[in-house]
Amino acid sequence: MQERNAERTKARILAAAIDEFAARGIAGGRVDRIAEVAGCNKAMLYAYFGNKDGLFDAAFSASVAEYLDEVGFDADDLPAYAGRVFDYFEAHPDRLRLSTWYRLERPHGQPLEAIVAVNASRLGELQRGMRRRVVPRVFTPVSLLSLIQAIATSWSSMNPEYGADEPNATMRRRAVVVAVQKILS
Amino acid sequence: MQERNAERTKARILAAAIDEFAARGIAGGRVDRIAEVAGCNKAMLYAYFGNKDGLFDAAFSASVAEYLDEVGFDADDLPAYAGRVFDYFEAHPDRLRLSTWYRLERPHGQPLEAIVAVNASRLGELQRGMRRRVVPRVFTPVSLLSLIQAIATSWSSMNPEYGADEPNATMRRRAVVVAVQKILS
Repeated sequence: MQERNAERTKARILAAAIDEFAARGIAGGRVDRIAEVAGCNKAMLYAYFGNKDGLFDAAFSASVAEYLDEVGFDADDLPAYAGRVFDYFEAHPDRLRLSTWYRLERPHGQPLEAIVAVNASRLGELQRGMRRRVVPRVFTPVSLLSLIQAIATSWSSMNPEYGADEPNATMRRRAVVVAVQKILS
Repeated sequence: MQERNAERTKARILAAAIDEFAARGIAGGRVDRIAEVAGCNKAMLYAYFGNKDGLFDAAFSASVAEYLDEVGFDADDLPAYAGRVFDYFEAHPDRLRLSTWYRLERPHGQPLEAIVAVNASRLGELQRGMRRRVVPRVFTPVSLLSLIQAIATSWSSMNPEYGADEPNATMRRRAVVVAVQKILS
């Protein structure tokens, strides 16, 4: 029972940390606010996660795990995968912000285990797909992964005023993402 | 003479501001440090640029103007343009960081005049290119611009350990950027 309570508290802290770091970044995020939103005291938070950096690592790794659960990966159908990546970040723009802060604020940090493992697994699937000839060999696996991610999230790098008000803008953007991936496949 | 001195001081402040904001972002950037590096007092800096936000606006607008000067835009040869965008951000990764902070820290801010003007001009050239049939009409101008930018800077979104040590990694990445743009053209 006590253990289950501990797990619940940790989950509440991580959810609050994802919100706080997505909004304000690592340097700008406040542990006080995370503890308050999670309804726990700071001593407990530090006991679980060490310090603010440790809390960010745990929150970002948890966010990546949720992303993988929802989006999956499918080397056999990269256009459909690109569409799901697009959908995910349209529904959860805070998760894209979180990984952008990570890139900006940890440019030379030790890579997180969870991220390295995820990328290695996707690159392995692309390599096997190339051997089975379901994935085109025009690009290397790293190039291909990098292109898919950049194209699927390309809208996020445009100023919001571009066509944000047009009807069906999201559907049309999604169609572009899937179409480009088909052209490249 | 006094006017020329004022222009030189402003230019030194803007250069120092670009470095500081690229490294630490808007919230994290310190006006004290910018004044110190530029070798002027804070009162003078505030007299020229108002406040930290005004200084960021001026620094980011100056950075965009330099980028345009160096990279240009050419609707008649989008693969070559994409290659130049890639070259620019390989040579000046701090400028990509600057615009990424802008996106993260000003998600709902008033768009900067300089950025709006630049984008309107490029979209206009793409539209004219489509009418002259030198630009493919598969995508809308906004989609095309967003794809070119995302693809040309796609490597920046990957963890640095991916092939950073491989020989000729930069040349090969550049070749991918240009090749994708040719496939889409």
